[in-house]
This record gives sequence, C-alpha cells and structure tokens, in this order.
Amino acid sequence: MRIRIDLAYDGTDFSGWARQPARRTVQSTLEDTIAQVLRLPKHPATICAGRTDAGVHARGQVVHLDLDDMIQPPRGESLPTVEGLRRWLPRALPDDVAVQSIDEAPPAFDARFSALKRRYVYRLWDCPAFDPLTRRFSVTYPHSLNVEAMTEAAQPLLGLRDFVAFCKPKDTGTSIRTLMELSPQRNPNGMIEITVTADAFCHSMVRCLVGGLVGVGRGLRDVTWITTHLNSGRRANDVVVMPAHGLTLEEVTYPPSEHLEERANQAKARRDESPQS
Amino acid sequence: MRIRIDLAYDGTDFSGWARQPARRTVQSTLEDTIAQVLRLPKHPATICAGRTDAGVHARGQVVHLDLDDMIQPPRGESLPTVEGLRRWLPRALPDDVAVQSIDEAPPAFDARFSALKRRYVYRLWDCPAFDPLTRRFSVTYPHSLNVEAMTEAAQPLLGLRDFVAFCKPKDTGTSIRTLMELSPQRNPNGMIEITVTADAFCHSMVRCLVGGLVGVGRGLRDVTWITTHLNSGRRANDVVVMPAHGLTLEEVTYPPSEHLEERANQAKARRDESPQS
Repeated sequence: MRIRIDLAYDGTDFSGWARQPARRTVQSTLEDTIAQVLRLPKHPATICAGRTDAGVHARGQVVHLDLDDMIQPPRGESLPTVEGLRRWLPRALPDDVAVQSIDEAPPAFDARFSALKRRYVYRLWDCPAFDPLTRRFSVTYPHSLNVEAMTEAAQPLLGLRDFVAFCKPKDTGTSIRTLMELSPQRNPNGMIEITVTADAFCHSMVRCLVGGLVGVGRGLRDVTWITTHLNSGRRANDVVVMPAHGLTLEEVTYPPSEHLEERANQAKARRDESPQS
Repeated sequence: MRIRIDLAYDGTDFSGWARQPARRTVQSTLEDTIAQVLRLPKHPATICAGRTDAGVHARGQVVHLDLDDMIQPPRGESLPTVEGLRRWLPRALPDDVAVQSIDEAPPAFDARFSALKRRYVYRLWDCPAFDPLTRRFSVTYPHSLNVEAMTEAAQPLLGLRDFVAFCKPKDTGTSIRTLMELSPQRNPNGMIEITVTADAFCHSMVRCLVGGLVGVGRGLRDVTWITTHLNSGRRANDVVVMPAHGLTLEEVTYPPSEHLEERANQAKARRDESPQS
C-alpha cells in the first residue's frame, strides 16, 4: 500500500532532507524511525515533495512510501499499518520533527511528481527591533528594505520562464518553471515575509530570487535589474544566495485523486532528469 | 536622566532575568553591554517590569535606568546618551536579545512600580501535529485538553484575590493580586494559548495557574477544583508548575505620564517587600 505522510520540521539541526552517509538528515531520521517502529529489516524508501537544503524548515512537507498492509506490533497483535504508524511514529520521532498526518494514498499518488505547486515563505527582519523568538526561522538583515520596490521588481518574474539565472548550476535537467507568486509583505510586527509559489523549483531558486529582491529593496539594484538578469539566461556571480534558515516549505498542493497520474506524467515529461523538484 | 528600554529576548540560554554570579542572565548581559558601549567604569543598575525565571521569554519586557545626559563615543564627539544607545546597543547585544525601543522617560517612571498590568502568554500543544518551529517557546503536552472546561474553570479566579495557593512560597510580601484575564484559546493551527493578565504576579504564579487549568483540561480535576484550591489559602504539593519555556512576557502597560508617580506609590504601598513584581 502507498502511504502519504505530512511532516513539519525545524531544519536547524539537520543536514537537509536527503540521506547522506554519517549525517543527520530528515530523510534518514524518518526512514530509520519508521523501520524501528514497524520492526522492518531495512529502512523503507521515501520520496518527498521538496528536497530541502541544510537548515531549511518545513511546515508542509509531503512524503510517500510503500509498505505492507499489515504489521506485527510489539504486543503480538497484527494491526493495519496506517493505524500503527499513527500511534507510534509521532512519539518515536525526535522533537524537531512532527507528523501532521498519516493516510493511505491512491497508488498513483507521487509526493514529488503529482504536486501542482509548492509554497515557500522566506522571513527576514530589516530593523533592530526584531522578535528573537523567531530567530531560528528568520534572518536579520542589517539594512532597511523598501518592500514596495521589491514588490514592483517581483511582478515581471511571474509566469513560465527559464530561471537558470537564479539557480545553482547543475548539469542536467531544465530550469524552466512556472512562478505563480512572488510577494514580499511587511507584517504588523515589522517582519518581512516573501511568499514564493511555483509548480516546482530548481536548486536554491527561492534563496536566489529573494537575494535579488533584497538587492533591489536595499537600493543596490534598479527595480528593472531582476528582469534584465533573468533575461540574460546565465547565472551571475553577484546573485546573493540568502541564508537557508530564513526559508520554510509551507505547503504543497495536489490535484484531486482522479488527476494524480495525469499530473505525474506531465511533470515527469517536462522535468525528467531535473536535479530538484 | 532616566531611560526606558523595551526589550525582547529568547530566554532559552539565560538563567532568567536577575544578575547572579557566574551565570548568563538577561540583566547582566544588558547592563554589561550598556557599560561597554557607553564606556562606563562600572555597569549601571537596571530595574525591570517582570523578573522572568530561567527559560522564560519576553517580547515586551520594560527596563529603566539612570545615566548621564551626554556620553563620549569612541570617535571623540560627544553625543546625547539616548541617541548613542540607539545606535550602538542593538548591534552590541547578542542575537537572543533585541532592543524594541530606547527613550528618555519622565523621572517618575519606574519600570516595576509604575506598571498597571503585565500580560503573559503560555503556549502549549496537546496534539502530535505540533509546529516544531515553535518548540523553543511552547510546550508539547502528551494528553489532549478540553479548552472549554479550562475556560470555565478560569472564570471564578478573576478579580482581587489572595493567590498564595498558586505561588511558590516566600517568606515576605503579600500574594494578593488582581487577576484581569485568564483566557485559554485554541488557535486555528491547534496550539493552545493561555493569556494571563494581572496588575502584578507572585513567584511562579502564571505557571501554577496554567498547571491548575491543564489538570482540569485533561479531566484529572473537576472544573470547580481550582476555586476550591484557591480558597484553601495554602499551596498544595499537587499543583503542577508548568515548564518555563512555554511562557512569554508579552506586554507591560503604564499609565499616562501625569499618573506615573501616583501609581508607583500605590503599588509600593501594597506590595512593599514583595519578592516578585
């Protein structure tokens, strides 16, 4: 059976999502804990919606994996797998990971390729009067930022475009993505939240886009610079990649069950070999 | 001149507000940093509105201190003290303390005794689907809580009462306080926030009140137990003191300038020798 797990984590103490030898990663923590509570001989293989970098957080990460329908729990009585996971997984995980929900998913559900869009939020403070309780998931920036200029600069980036100029270079895969939302906003408490939604993202794309906007907001760049840079079609050395800990994967959206497979086929065809979904 | 500093801090890595030998406290960090940026021969003496315990956070702590009007900054030019502090103090403080504002205050302003009320919020999760980004300032509780029962239990505690049954015992001072608000509320994301406002608090009073409410919310106590316990007039061993890191001092309210002195005299008369304001 296919299982969908919705997950939140504080990325501070993880070396990102993807399993790596001798590193504490979210994927290895989740897979090893599932193997432990279900007494599996080896860890299951999970696929996630957004392979977050080291330090990046998630409130709405989505994962799928395949498991047998029934498990043998410690007390000897057989139990449906979903029910067993719901009971034991949350309390077996370390306290920087929290299960939001565990459900059986249709066989066509693919956490990565069925996704319609991913929504990230980047949080930063440009004033000394920041809230220190947010400092694990926000960045303090030492110059004040003009949010109106950032909003103006963001508008022309929306739509289907090649974002190669705002990605860390990789050899394979396309960098053509549909950017649906790029909205800087100042909260009543002074924090700036930049919401970034796209069908999918290239490597470091959110942090590069935010870096570009911050350059405009600080007045180092003209409002039109971002578009010029995007259209140049190549990555410049002067695009700032913002620090990871300001970034949180907030939400992943999927189509209704009957369109899961169609969507996955579409996404695979367009982004096959793409290094980062 | 008298100076008012509004301060926020992440209490995780502090041994509370009050200066103690060989401990990292908020008071010693603030006073030592002020002495450093103003090049004072010894640290100034600060008075705060709420002497938070080890691990308790603040978004709205208020402090006063007295300093000379003019300072000699490093570059040789004399500068008004408030202006110098605004420029240098925020960047000299460690990143778990944030200055919200620095202003000259009337001579009658007393951060502790002029305060009309203090508002604290206690944050906790009673479901496995908690948000791990809030775990530095909220508590996960392993049983589900009935917020309606907690609200009902809280109502009869409001008003002018002797809270000795909900305080850690001290030899001196009165434990009579006016409780203005005790409101448990469940947020849309599932977190429970308990807002507690009073003219002033005895030692551990918020954490004991929340402990009492949690006992009711879990169904261990009858809704009327809290009132019975309050009226018993003595501290029972079975009142749970909730963990410090769920508690944040959110706001302190003062009267208009012309009533500062009158208020301070009132408060001093009623709570003289009181161990905790």
